Amino acid sequence: MSIAGTDAARVATATLLRIAEPGSPALSTYVREHGVLAAIDAVRAGAPIGGMDTDGMRHRLEGASGERDIERAASVGARLLCPGDAEWPTMLDDLRWVDRDCLGLWALGPLSLADACEQSVAVVGTRVATDYGAHVATEFAAGLAEVGWTVVSGLAYGIDGVAHRAALASGGPTVAVLACGVDVPYPSGHRSLYDRIATEGLVVTEHPPGAAPQRPRFLVRNRIIAALSLGTVVVEAALRSGARSTATHAGLLNRHLMVVPGPITSATSAGCHQLLRDRPDAVVVTRVEEIVEQCGHMGELAAQLSAPASVRDALGPTVGRVLEGVPVKRASTVAAIAATAGVSVDVAVASLAALATAGLVAQVDGRWSMTDAGRSDRKARRGPAPRQLPFDDW
Amino acid sequence: MSIAGTDAARVATATLLRIAEPGSPALSTYVREHGVLAAIDAVRAGAPIGGMDTDGMRHRLEGASGERDIERAASVGARLLCPGDAEWPTMLDDLRWVDRDCLGLWALGPLSLADACEQSVAVVGTRVATDYGAHVATEFAAGLAEVGWTVVSGLAYGIDGVAHRAALASGGPTVAVLACGVDVPYPSGHRSLYDRIATEGLVVTEHPPGAAPQRPRFLVRNRIIAALSLGTVVVEAALRSGARSTATHAGLLNRHLMVVPGPITSATSAGCHQLLRDRPDAVVVTRVEEIVEQCGHMGELAAQLSAPASVRDALGPTVGRVLEGVPVKRASTVAAIAATAGVSVDVAVASLAALATAGLVAQVDGRWSMTDAGRSDRKARRGPAPRQLPFDDW
Repeated sequence: MSIAGTDAARVATATLLRIAEPGSPALSTYVREHGVLAAIDAVRAGAPIGGMDTDGMRHRLEGASGERDIERAASVGARLLCPGDAEWPTMLDDLRWVDRDCLGLWALGPLSLADACEQSVAVVGTRVATDYGAHVATEFAAGLAEVGWTVVSGLAYGIDGVAHRAALASGGPTVAVLACGVDVPYPSGHRSLYDRIATEGLVVTEHPPGAAPQRPRFLVRNRIIAALSLGTVVVEAALRSGARSTATHAGLLNRHLMVVPGPITSATSAGCHQLLRDRPDAVVVTRVEEIVEQCGHMGELAAQLSAPASVRDALGPTVGRVLEGVPVKRASTVAAIAATAGVSVDVAVASLAALATAGLVAQVDGRWSMTDAGRSDRKARRGPAPRQLPFDDW
Repeated sequence: MSIAGTDAARVATATLLRIAEPGSPALSTYVREHGVLAAIDAVRAGAPIGGMDTDGMRHRLEGASGERDIERAASVGARLLCPGDAEWPTMLDDLRWVDRDCLGLWALGPLSLADACEQSVAVVGTRVATDYGAHVATEFAAGLAEVGWTVVSGLAYGIDGVAHRAALASGGPTVAVLACGVDVPYPSGHRSLYDRIATEGLVVTEHPPGAAPQRPRFLVRNRIIAALSLGTVVVEAALRSGARSTATHAGLLNRHLMVVPGPITSATSAGCHQLLRDRPDAVVVTRVEEIVEQCGHMGELAAQLSAPASVRDALGPTVGRVLEGVPVKRASTVAAIAATAGVSVDVAVASLAALATAGLVAQVDGRWSMTDAGRSDRKARRGPAPRQLPFDDW
């Protein structure tokens, strides 16, 4: 982390954001192991990075200048955020779990990103929102703003724009994650909204100043939206919708996934219902209180760790699934646990580390087993379910 | 069973249905252990039945006559169904799990109840349906009828009536479960619907001829609706809705619980969303195909038992939860398994019996443990989840 704090590393980060498309596993791994300066050196020398062909990057490197991008950003009031900066939210580092690290972010606006994301929810959905979806997004974003939560979204038409606007109207913080340069107000119909967020909230992006929005960039961008929030609320989504990719990331990053149901006759709710059917971790939400209740857990992690309540509750759904995959009585390999939990090996490794920190699992000779605390936690979790109402309670 | 087939037992059953409110655990247990004739004798002798005071029953017995009720029913074309009859669906015997046995049913209509319920779904919901709910109930009931499924419901205003009508309109079988006498067309506005179901479908009830509908009888009746169907679809329900009691029974009886979402702004969908939030076994359904897919499992139980697919899938959600509660490596008591699974001891006992039949668990010295087949089944169930999409599949 410390080297990223040096001027040379900041310039190298700016350069890297200019020459590389974000979300590359090979580059993520390389930078994690060797740092940004070495990555630039490797590109310049024509050395391969992981298995990745760096010809394109080397070509772009010729015309690139980190200093110039930093100056260009500064000219519109924007700044570069690097891992380890005071303003860098550690939540972004969870992207390591999916090997799609965020190497740096351009930011424009008065808020501190780390502060803004401490209590944050992504409110996302279709570009072609119905009146119903717009109404719900407005209610949720306004309600979240009123209780001090930050609304993260993607500045798109439809649900995204409505959510940003409602948060601003309630005087709440809002963060827009772009799929283009921090100085590119896209879509054009949202120029004034962009201006307002840049003035009162925060606009962030991995793309260099001036970068145009391109189709694949929206999907890669969605992982940042998911990472920057404790949970994602999908308000309205068609069967094929970018909101689904945000939902996928939310799950992979151990974030809460909340879904707003709608009429089954509405095409713009079909993606929501599909999520509810397909994703065991998807939770129906109908009120702001339910969102706060859902996401509050993670915010209260520190307090809950020493509390008698189930520690796993505090660790979020994915880590919970991984704990579920650890055999109660014997030790198991990461690969077996990952398979049992239905997560990737990387996610399992990260989750097991978190569980070990919480004292629920322990590693011996490369195999993981449950501790006594883990067993009691599991037992506590599996008490009688609330549905066991006495018959006469109706 | 055999004694219930005798004329004396049939008369005693008719008498019992006249003098006892259905769904009494004490009477259920007594009849299960001693038979209907002994139960009548006990009432006549003023002997207690379980801990139940039988004064009221004895008083009613003075004016009661099973023969007369059988004749009275016959005069309107109705018949008495007793456990063990060819037309008696064994599904009704599952009510033993909740200790609220169905001791007998009055039936009116041309269908065989056992045949009608072989592939059956309950479609239930609020009496004050919206256009949306009525539309969905119509689509679902018509679609189910078209693929040969029976629609079970409660003849109430709103969703129930719409579902019956749509099934009839599609030429499909439909079963109405009443909370009053088989000869009492209630509610009065549904007299012609009642007539049509009695002519083309089946009207059934536990209550004696002429019995008036009374408030508590609707809730007790709902367990019969749940028991007579492989799954229950709640189309629209307010927060306090009888449909929720049907949903509770569906869960306790190991039936599939399917819920139709709606706008979160609609009070008549609030109960549906609450079910989706509270009940881990509640599944969102948006199309008839999804209902058939969900409930088909149980219908295909026999075939699936020898198939390599997970046997537990075929056993339904509650039995699945109980299997989940059986330790993989050691033996455990019924009480411990019930607590782990979050079900009552009675449900655990019944589920373990089903699991033992399927060869997944075995009992030794009063303790239950998993068989090798059970362990493989569990392993098969826990393969990688479908959500583990490669990132580039978007």
